[in-house]
Amino acid sequence: MPNERRFEKIFSKYFAEVMWSKEVLIKLSVMNPQDLIRKKRDNGRFSPDEIKEFVNGVSDGSWSDYQIAALLMAMFINGLNLREQNALTEAMLNSGKTFDFSDLDGPVADKHSTGGVGDKTSILIASLAAACGVFVPMISGRGLGHTGGTLDKLESIDGYNIDLSTDEFHKTLKKCGFAMSGQTVDIAPADKRLYSLRDATSTIESVPMIVGSIMSKKLAEGLNALVLDVKTGSGAFMKQERDARKLARALVRTGKAFGVKTEALITDMNQPLGKFVGNSLEIFECIKILQNDFDKLMKPTLDLSVELTSRILTMTRIASSAKAAKAIVKNALESGKALELLKLNIKQQGGNAKVCDKPEMLCDKGLLEVKVKSPETGFITEIDAAEIGKAVAMIGGGRFVPSDKIDHFVGYACDSKIGSRVTVHEPLGTLYCRNEGQAAKVLAKLQMAYKIGLEKNVRKFELVKEVIS
Amino acid sequence: MPNERRFEKIFSKYFAEVMWSKEVLIKLSVMNPQDLIRKKRDNGRFSPDEIKEFVNGVSDGSWSDYQIAALLMAMFINGLNLREQNALTEAMLNSGKTFDFSDLDGPVADKHSTGGVGDKTSILIASLAAACGVFVPMISGRGLGHTGGTLDKLESIDGYNIDLSTDEFHKTLKKCGFAMSGQTVDIAPADKRLYSLRDATSTIESVPMIVGSIMSKKLAEGLNALVLDVKTGSGAFMKQERDARKLARALVRTGKAFGVKTEALITDMNQPLGKFVGNSLEIFECIKILQNDFDKLMKPTLDLSVELTSRILTMTRIASSAKAAKAIVKNALESGKALELLKLNIKQQGGNAKVCDKPEMLCDKGLLEVKVKSPETGFITEIDAAEIGKAVAMIGGGRFVPSDKIDHFVGYACDSKIGSRVTVHEPLGTLYCRNEGQAAKVLAKLQMAYKIGLEKNVRKFELVKEVIS
Repeated sequence: MPNERRFEKIFSKYFAEVMWSKEVLIKLSVMNPQDLIRKKRDNGRFSPDEIKEFVNGVSDGSWSDYQIAALLMAMFINGLNLREQNALTEAMLNSGKTFDFSDLDGPVADKHSTGGVGDKTSILIASLAAACGVFVPMISGRGLGHTGGTLDKLESIDGYNIDLSTDEFHKTLKKCGFAMSGQTVDIAPADKRLYSLRDATSTIESVPMIVGSIMSKKLAEGLNALVLDVKTGSGAFMKQERDARKLARALVRTGKAFGVKTEALITDMNQPLGKFVGNSLEIFECIKILQNDFDKLMKPTLDLSVELTSRILTMTRIASSAKAAKAIVKNALESGKALELLKLNIKQQGGNAKVCDKPEMLCDKGLLEVKVKSPETGFITEIDAAEIGKAVAMIGGGRFVPSDKIDHFVGYACDSKIGSRVTVHEPLGTLYCRNEGQAAKVLAKLQMAYKIGLEKNVRKFELVKEVIS
Repeated sequence: MPNERRFEKIFSKYFAEVMWSKEVLIKLSVMNPQDLIRKKRDNGRFSPDEIKEFVNGVSDGSWSDYQIAALLMAMFINGLNLREQNALTEAMLNSGKTFDFSDLDGPVADKHSTGGVGDKTSILIASLAAACGVFVPMISGRGLGHTGGTLDKLESIDGYNIDLSTDEFHKTLKKCGFAMSGQTVDIAPADKRLYSLRDATSTIESVPMIVGSIMSKKLAEGLNALVLDVKTGSGAFMKQERDARKLARALVRTGKAFGVKTEALITDMNQPLGKFVGNSLEIFECIKILQNDFDKLMKPTLDLSVELTSRILTMTRIASSAKAAKAIVKNALESGKALELLKLNIKQQGGNAKVCDKPEMLCDKGLLEVKVKSPETGFITEIDAAEIGKAVAMIGGGRFVPSDKIDHFVGYACDSKIGSRVTVHEPLGTLYCRNEGQAAKVLAKLQMAYKIGLEKNVRKFELVKEVIS
């Protein structure tokens, strides 16, 4: 209210002689924070200009944190329709720089995952897709809470620099077929402020806001195609499949609205993906896979990476069918080309590329290996993947607040997965930690993350539950 | 989320050996801001302890402005039930000091108005009720936007001090039967922070929050009885009568829940109350009334004051019926006793009590008197009282932001009210301003606040629309 009044005061100074037109006043003053908040509070619909006004206010600091928080809550509860969602994405996108990769002689594509536990597919997909002729300008994030982040994983490689300038990013991309970097302040800067306020005010889980946050950053990459890995299950952000589906559809719709070929896979996150959880251990797993030297616990990591990379190849018309795409990806893996590109990329980004020949370097850190034993005999029927992610974070492998420092080398190996038969005192997994104190802190938590039943869970396990395109 | 995690981290440090009990964790960790916000976001109901936790967080600064704003919006949209509303009031009340007037040999009562234009009844009611044997410890506020505030009006009396210490307040009350003071930081301090955030985030118009704000301050006065003047109409906060009724009922219910006899009158604010709008002019009107020297334009001010004071007398059992109460009030007025007490109070609070003998002192400030002329001939069918309030504020008689300085002497006199016949160029009212520039600024606005129709509005005018007890 005071803003409106202040405006009227200023207005009246200059137009004292003019008869007051309420319509003009309403039109001119509708843009102030209180009015926009009131509109959404009362379940109104925003015009693209109004959304833009809000996002500009977030970027230029003219909106206060508490006004943003109030509007976020109103948007959370009363929702945004597709038009508003797309306007939000566009305004956030336009709040920063966008890349122009038109000089590259090949399609540009990326993958985005909604986050999970043991989800290390980014490194594999970037290497594989690049080996198939796609340029992958991958802007990633850090881990928070139970979920890991690609940047943290990469930083477990000695010397690897994730802080590339726009030029370095472009050059690396051109040379290696992919580049991996953190979000610079230049890209969708409004998102940074919005995200931290959403985090502090319990307004994260809103489909249109998630779409705006994800897509504004991905669209800034100047992509031809985007594949989305929307995870669902105990270790996912969206525990319920219907919520994941809703988000996936919204993401795909918005991607397409901006002229980017977009597909989403709804994938299982009811247990950690693959074998390892923990930054360096996950890089280890990726390299073992690229070396064609993986065990069956690592297989789902490869399978999902192949699925997602294949989608990129069909969308970018490098492959004419899903089957052809998989054959191309398989060749990129088995020929060693993907590993070569990863090696090149690590070198280019300042890291010690020897890890590609000797991935054991990443694990050989004198850690204590403690077995997490099954309390009973039976079948693993459920795993609370978020609890495993949290346990790893609790011993330093992740963060609870963005400022937490992390220990890249601690982690956890899943020795048994859902459906496995375990006998009492047989290991469910292995904790890689620094000392006994850490083990004491999380062993019970890890043990409790497993449900052991007398009968094998007959539900068929599907890594990819649905494709939305 | 991060807070919860942090908590778990701390928790786990101390209870490493104990098996994690999710129930215990949920119970212990439910109090963090994000969890409380999430609960109301998802339309949950707060326990009194949860409400207390929130209000404590507001008072002690442990909740950030944006977290408060987010919860305010969630409470605005999803509402609070009666139990939550009372818990909010209690927590806000307990956030500060309360008065103890048990040493006074008479009932303690007060009036609260939801605010209007030209609403100067506080000064009359305090004087009249005190003259009838009631102690009135009146904590008032300042004006904002189109509404005036009792403190500003009192400060137009030369020397009058509205900044009393608890002791001075108590002493004045004992001596004069009433005391008028601003809200000290000691009374319901949580309300100050909440109110300014509500103002900035468009979450003012929420019944439970209004109830909490009003009642926490009024209950701190240690009252036996409280009469509420809930205004409705063009100059009121609640434009619609049904909204006013809803608020009135909620206020009465909460007052009673705290053991205070409470009644609410829903009263007309479709035009300024009485004759004058403007701080010193309104004090002038009050004194003229207490001198029994008023014209018919001032009569509604007296009538409403008598109504409200009578309610206090019946609630405190000083009068056995409404009729008896009115007779007692009439005697307090006509005997000059109320004016005597006002004079005593002004003296006691450091003001120049000569105004009680010579109220013209308050107007005689060399102001320019400009007539606002009717643009046509007909009957006044509507008056936008808020526009009149704003016009007075625009020439310095009020504030648009709390930091605005005010000019106590400018104002407006209503020369014609709803139902009056006016001919073209005949004055609708008189503007008391400092210069021609001010007049130019608001004349059109004032003129446009009136609707002139060809037929007299036949709707019967009722000052008191409903009594809720």
